[in-house]
Amino acid sequence: MYEGVIQELIDELGRLPGVGPKSAQRIAFYLLQTEDDHAKRLAQVLLEVKDRVRFCDVCGNVSEEDRCNICRDVRRAQNVICVVEESKDVQAIERTREFKGLYHVLGGAISPIEGVGPDQLRIKELITRLGNAEIQEVIIATDPNLEGEATATYLTRMLSPMGITVSRLASGLPVGGDLEYADEVTLGRAFEGRRTVT
Amino acid sequence: MYEGVIQELIDELGRLPGVGPKSAQRIAFYLLQTEDDHAKRLAQVLLEVKDRVRFCDVCGNVSEEDRCNICRDVRRAQNVICVVEESKDVQAIERTREFKGLYHVLGGAISPIEGVGPDQLRIKELITRLGNAEIQEVIIATDPNLEGEATATYLTRMLSPMGITVSRLASGLPVGGDLEYADEVTLGRAFEGRRTVT
Repeated sequence: MYEGVIQELIDELGRLPGVGPKSAQRIAFYLLQTEDDHAKRLAQVLLEVKDRVRFCDVCGNVSEEDRCNICRDVRRAQNVICVVEESKDVQAIERTREFKGLYHVLGGAISPIEGVGPDQLRIKELITRLGNAEIQEVIIATDPNLEGEATATYLTRMLSPMGITVSRLASGLPVGGDLEYADEVTLGRAFEGRRTVT
Repeated sequence: MYEGVIQELIDELGRLPGVGPKSAQRIAFYLLQTEDDHAKRLAQVLLEVKDRVRFCDVCGNVSEEDRCNICRDVRRAQNVICVVEESKDVQAIERTREFKGLYHVLGGAISPIEGVGPDQLRIKELITRLGNAEIQEVIIATDPNLEGEATATYLTRMLSPMGITVSRLASGLPVGGDLEYADEVTLGRAFEGRRTVT
């Protein structure tokens, strides 16, 4: 154990996700020994982030305003909504530059084990949004795991009676991957979703 | 890219040692979404640590006072000094509960590649300390790598004319390890340092 405040810093760092006690110690000593003001800048931005960051009233994405950048952008297609679990997923999709519509962030996925049901997610907000605006397509882009699939199935069942096209992201082989190393489920999905090319 | 302050937080976190862009994003969202005041506490301790933590005037270990806990502790053997590279090493040795003497933290190891020579380390302070106090043994506990060995050799050459016992930590097989997987140098050292048991 270190003396007082150093140990406190190591403890606080060690509670961050993915940071073990050894990494926490390494980071603490780095912060202690660097000449520049990294520790001070990090402290400042940590204080600011909780004050300034909120969630977009419309889509639930992180934002510094009432409405996020994407919801405010009139050049984006206003009739397509892509439903994702987290803000991180919005960024991942934005990086592809493939999608020019709007988003809806659920804030998680249905998981009975973790006690997350449909009521804990922003599904009601999605339904309200679909009732108000002229949305033609909802693309469900939840994670391709058990919770994501359950959420997607639930959403599909909720949305299909509303007369809106509901689609899912394609499952299949990852680009740059090796067929040999693909798991059976992925390979099975790749067969199922095969496309005629001639 | 995220909006403003979130991206700033991700950038600052990503500059910490061992934290890549993905981990930085994960930590940022964790801090943003946790209910408790983890972000605020971390910010506070970051601000405090630079103000309150200094280096012990005697041994160079991290401390909140002019002299560290260990140097102030009169119950510790005052005639043995263990020389280590970093404060982290002091903690590692303290955890073994094998050593009850004092420490001297060099602040690194001799490394011509990184431009660290004997003058950049706290070697002069060690010599002064040995001149003043009645030290009987100096245990050199630098890392068992190229830089650590070079530093140990340099120190041995400096200290041997002073009439003080200079010792080195034993090299050999790590406890719980597998002889088969030990590298040749370690295995060679284990032979060299073998002890008669009957």
